[in-house]
Amino acid sequence: MRTVPVICVTIVGEAVVEKRLLRAIEALGAGGWTVTSGHGRGTGFVQASEWEGANVRIETLVSPPVADSILEMLARDYFPHFAVIAWTSPVSVVRADKFL
Amino acid sequence: MRTVPVICVTIVGEAVVEKRLLRAIEALGAGGWTVTSGHGRGTGFVQASEWEGANVRIETLVSPPVADSILEMLARDYFPHFAVIAWTSPVSVVRADKFL
Amino acid sequence: MRTVPVICVTIVGEAVVEKRLLRAIEALGAGGWTVTSGHGRGTGFVQASEWEGANVRIETLVSPPVADSILEMLARDYFPHFAVIAWTSPVSVVRADKFL
Repeated sequence: MRTVPVICVTIVGEAVVEKRLLRAIEALGAGGWTVTSGHGRGTGFVQASEWEGANVRIETLVSPPVADSILEMLARDYFPHFAVIAWTSPVSVVRADKFL
Repeated sequence: MRTVPVICVTIVGEAVVEKRLLRAIEALGAGGWTVTSGHGRGTGFVQASEWEGANVRIETLVSPPVADSILEMLARDYFPHFAVIAWTSPVSVVRADKFL
Repeated sequence: MRTVPVICVTIVGEAVVEKRLLRAIEALGAGGWTVTSGHGRGTGFVQASEWEGANVRIETLVSPPVADSILEMLARDYFPHFAVIAWTSPVSVVRADKFL
C-alpha cells in the first residue's frame, strides 16, 4: 500500500480555546482536523502551576512546514495564556497526495 | 520492560460508517479496537470536496500485514464513498505476544 | 521550533479503572494526562478471553524512565486483573523542559 510520511500534530488544551484554535490552525494550512473531548490534568506543562478540567484533543495531519508554523503560533499565542500542550509524531498516511 | 513493535492504525471517518468499519477490520484480523467519538472537518482528504460533522476515531494495534490489508480495504471500499482518512504509526506494546 | 523527544504512553482500559490508574501513574511521575472516553473490544489483548464495553483512553507524556515504570506497574498490577492495554511511541514536544 502506498503511503507517504506526514506529521501528526496533537494539541490538547482547555475546552474554551477550541474554536479559536481550529481557526488558527486552518489559517496556517491545516486542511482538516479531528476533535475529541475529554478531561485532563497538568502539572508541569502549563504555565499556570496546575490545571485540571475539561479539555479538547485536536489532531491534524500536515506537512513539516505547516507543523512548524502551528507549533510557533502555539508557543507565541497560546502557551503564555492558556493550558495548552502540543506534540508531533511522524505517521504514514494513505492518499497523502491530498496533504502535501 | 519487554515490548514488541506493532502497527497502530488510526481511522477517522463519518460516524455513520462505524459499525461496518469495525466488522471489516475484524474480518481482516484486528483482534481489538478502541473507538472515541468527536467531530471533524476535512478539506483535502475526502473525495467530496469538503466535509464537516460527527466522526469516530478508531484505533487498532495489528501486525504489519494486517495493517496493509486494512489500508487496502479502506482505499478500495471506503475512500471512494465516505469521508474517511487513515494513518499508521509504529508503536511498542506490552504483552505483544498477544498480537503477533 | 525547538522540540525535545519524550515518550507518549497510551493506556486503554475498562472505564472502572480510570481513577486508580491516574493515581498510579501520577505516583510514578506523570505530571499530566488526558483522558478521553469511548468503547472498545478486545480479543487477544486481555487476559480474559474477550472483553467489550465502555473504556477510557489515557495519554501521558513522560521521560523514558517514567514510561518504563508505568509499563512495569501495569504489567504487575493491572494486566492480570483488568482489560487494559498499553503502548508507547516517541513524540516531539514543545516546551519539553517542563517534562524532563
